[in-house]
Amino acid sequence: MSQSDTQSSYPTSARNQVKRRHDRGFYDHATVHRILDSSMLCHVSYAIDGQPYCTPTFFWREGTKLYWHGSSASRMLRNQSKGERVCVTVAHLDSLVLARCGFNHSADYRAVMAFGIAYLVTDPEEKQRALVAMVDRFFPDRTASLRQSNTQEIKATSFIAMEIEEASAKIRAKGVADDEEDYALPIYAERIPVRTVLGAPEPCARLLDGVTRPATLNGYTEGRLLEDALRGAYFKQYPTG
Amino acid sequence: MSQSDTQSSYPTSARNQVKRRHDRGFYDHATVHRILDSSMLCHVSYAIDGQPYCTPTFFWREGTKLYWHGSSASRMLRNQSKGERVCVTVAHLDSLVLARCGFNHSADYRAVMAFGIAYLVTDPEEKQRALVAMVDRFFPDRTASLRQSNTQEIKATSFIAMEIEEASAKIRAKGVADDEEDYALPIYAERIPVRTVLGAPEPCARLLDGVTRPATLNGYTEGRLLEDALRGAYFKQYPTG
Repeated sequence: MSQSDTQSSYPTSARNQVKRRHDRGFYDHATVHRILDSSMLCHVSYAIDGQPYCTPTFFWREGTKLYWHGSSASRMLRNQSKGERVCVTVAHLDSLVLARCGFNHSADYRAVMAFGIAYLVTDPEEKQRALVAMVDRFFPDRTASLRQSNTQEIKATSFIAMEIEEASAKIRAKGVADDEEDYALPIYAERIPVRTVLGAPEPCARLLDGVTRPATLNGYTEGRLLEDALRGAYFKQYPTG
Repeated sequence: MSQSDTQSSYPTSARNQVKRRHDRGFYDHATVHRILDSSMLCHVSYAIDGQPYCTPTFFWREGTKLYWHGSSASRMLRNQSKGERVCVTVAHLDSLVLARCGFNHSADYRAVMAFGIAYLVTDPEEKQRALVAMVDRFFPDRTASLRQSNTQEIKATSFIAMEIEEASAKIRAKGVADDEEDYALPIYAERIPVRTVLGAPEPCARLLDGVTRPATLNGYTEGRLLEDALRGAYFKQYPTG
């Protein structure tokens, strides 16, 4: 593997190597990051005294670092000062796959598992950046148009960050894949696509007269795939990826 | 709390009690099960030697028991014979909420965390039921129309089951909720609904002549909410809930 390959892929170990169906495994930054940036929802998993917890929460990526809102992980935070081992997982369901036998029923999907040590963001500058990014990563330039955060709100907001030590992506995207001899059977098989889409935006009923939807929200239109809107917003906010 | 209330709710402890925003917490079977049955994807979290893992996988419910396909948890299985503590989480993203300040940006969502001991299904009768349910729970009566599973496939398929010891649901469904004084500001706010919908079914390109879509799949139609199709299928397969 050349140096540039190394630089653009996550290292593998027993922890993140895709074991079953390893032909579906990817470790390069481009694949892993695209799956992450296509989602706003992740599942953060951590353990306290051997008891695992799995918390769904919003997150975003900066380089090879993930950030999420700390309140959802308050239980975890109470137990950690020096950092806590976590696994952050993102999954997209792309289709249901109905095959000619039970064994080949499946789904098309894209998923990432990322491993690292989560820590509370305490550096004031990093926290200030996170306060902006938690809005602007999803809705570019929106923070500038908002009522500024007050001291109490800033104090009440905590962020967790995790440098990705290892990560893997797993992708299935082949629809129906039956055993060759089963194609001769008179059994119906199909793929049912699944899409997560935006509905028509619902303006707040208490908007002041004359306040209209800003152009910065143009990426969020009825019927658009949520993941396309999210990736579009991401590249506006982080043009270099 | 009356006895019938106790019977129809999950017990609470430090583990499953919703801590932050406890007004959003629910423990009754009806609320928890509806959120579970509206999804086919869960995230299973477990820990091996203090290292947490979070695996996305398909699952279904039978009474107060959850089942999922064992292959995705092969790493976990290798470490467990007597059972492993897990947390199973299901989350639905219902909307993005854009408020008048950063602090009140939020989302509407429905999520369940369920705790218990996961075990490998070894009882032949329970495994046979799971082989049928893994298809028919999603696509009622489909197994009867399929090529039967052979011995090798049955051997290669493993299932994990977990009796739900404790569970909690957390729901936010209120759209924009700003601080009262912020409504006087000339700032745009809205709720953007998010929906996971079915696309047009794509029949397998290698169907035999005359093989058409069976009526049992009528619940899966283009544009329908995935969760409505899943709940419809669930109540066909498990009419008593």
